[in-house]
Amino acid sequence: MRIIVIGGNGTIGKAVVKELSSRHEVLVAGRHKGDLICDMTSEESIRAMYLKAGSFDAVVATVGTVHFEEFSQMTAAKYQVGLNDKLMGQVNLVLIGCQFICEGGSFTLTSGILNHDPIRTGSSASMVNGALEGFVKGAAIEMDKQIRINLVSPTVITEAMDVYAPYFRGFDSVPAPKVALAYSKSVEGLQTGQVYKVGY
Amino acid sequence: MRIIVIGGNGTIGKAVVKELSSRHEVLVAGRHKGDLICDMTSEESIRAMYLKAGSFDAVVATVGTVHFEEFSQMTAAKYQVGLNDKLMGQVNLVLIGCQFICEGGSFTLTSGILNHDPIRTGSSASMVNGALEGFVKGAAIEMDKQIRINLVSPTVITEAMDVYAPYFRGFDSVPAPKVALAYSKSVEGLQTGQVYKVGY
Repeated sequence: MRIIVIGGNGTIGKAVVKELSSRHEVLVAGRHKGDLICDMTSEESIRAMYLKAGSFDAVVATVGTVHFEEFSQMTAAKYQVGLNDKLMGQVNLVLIGCQFICEGGSFTLTSGILNHDPIRTGSSASMVNGALEGFVKGAAIEMDKQIRINLVSPTVITEAMDVYAPYFRGFDSVPAPKVALAYSKSVEGLQTGQVYKVGY
Repeated sequence: MRIIVIGGNGTIGKAVVKELSSRHEVLVAGRHKGDLICDMTSEESIRAMYLKAGSFDAVVATVGTVHFEEFSQMTAAKYQVGLNDKLMGQVNLVLIGCQFICEGGSFTLTSGILNHDPIRTGSSASMVNGALEGFVKGAAIEMDKQIRINLVSPTVITEAMDVYAPYFRGFDSVPAPKVALAYSKSVEGLQTGQVYKVGY
């Protein structure tokens, strides 16, 4: 298969690229570097990436920003960060990607544990993760050309605990290579509309 | 208690008003008519409503618009309708309402079945319902002043089946008065961060 990994330079992305590249041709897409350049908050940038990629069978997205802050300090504009970036960025990768992806191709998006196991400052992440779960379940049943879509929802990543540990006290982290297996299951399997919870 | 029901003129809203008004003082808020006028897509309108309401103990929202269309015809702009209206409208009722509501007060929002049981044309509804579930779970644990927040997620409403039946074939509908009980449980009970599924 020919697989585009958007966010392939990140903590999860690198592990996904490693997992998939032994068996497949992997194109790493990043905002500033990679085989392909893509700012997923821009529909034009997404379209340009797909045009440059040529034929492909799978898209994996391991990117997305949300705003973390105490609920009492949150505003509509701060929620909009996550809605525009992690949510609609990934949704636009699918909407536009459907015009380019091969028959039987797949999209694998990334959410996270926080809509099931919330933390302080995490209400925007909880919102966006829930939205991604709903979107994937809703879109999966309507996909044309046998295209599939799944979501990977990991708990906090072991390799990121140097930064995230204070926010995730008491959470058991999961190593990125183990998370990468869920992307492999999504891309190389035949399931659709699934939320793969990893490490929780 | 003094309770504001936003959308109190709608199918669910009327049943909620009927359920609560025998025991409480209920203020009906609507976009065009009611004891209070509120366009929840406008932060200024929400603030004006709360200022006019005076002291209150609970806010119930039974409103929200999303765009229904086949997935292949959906665009980012069409998803934005539901994100701006049903999602951020209700979220803004909470964000702004927290500045006015009494200690120990509650917010009860409304989602729906479609993120758990998707239908054709429903991918935006699935997205928004999932987002509301995540938001309520995330926000609940950070609420100040013993304020609570819950979500009611009904299946299709019996009283609306004349319009919705073609989209919900095979779904068992639930009468609005039964849905209203879940709002009563949220407002008059002590639970928080809950998603009350009704009729499914």
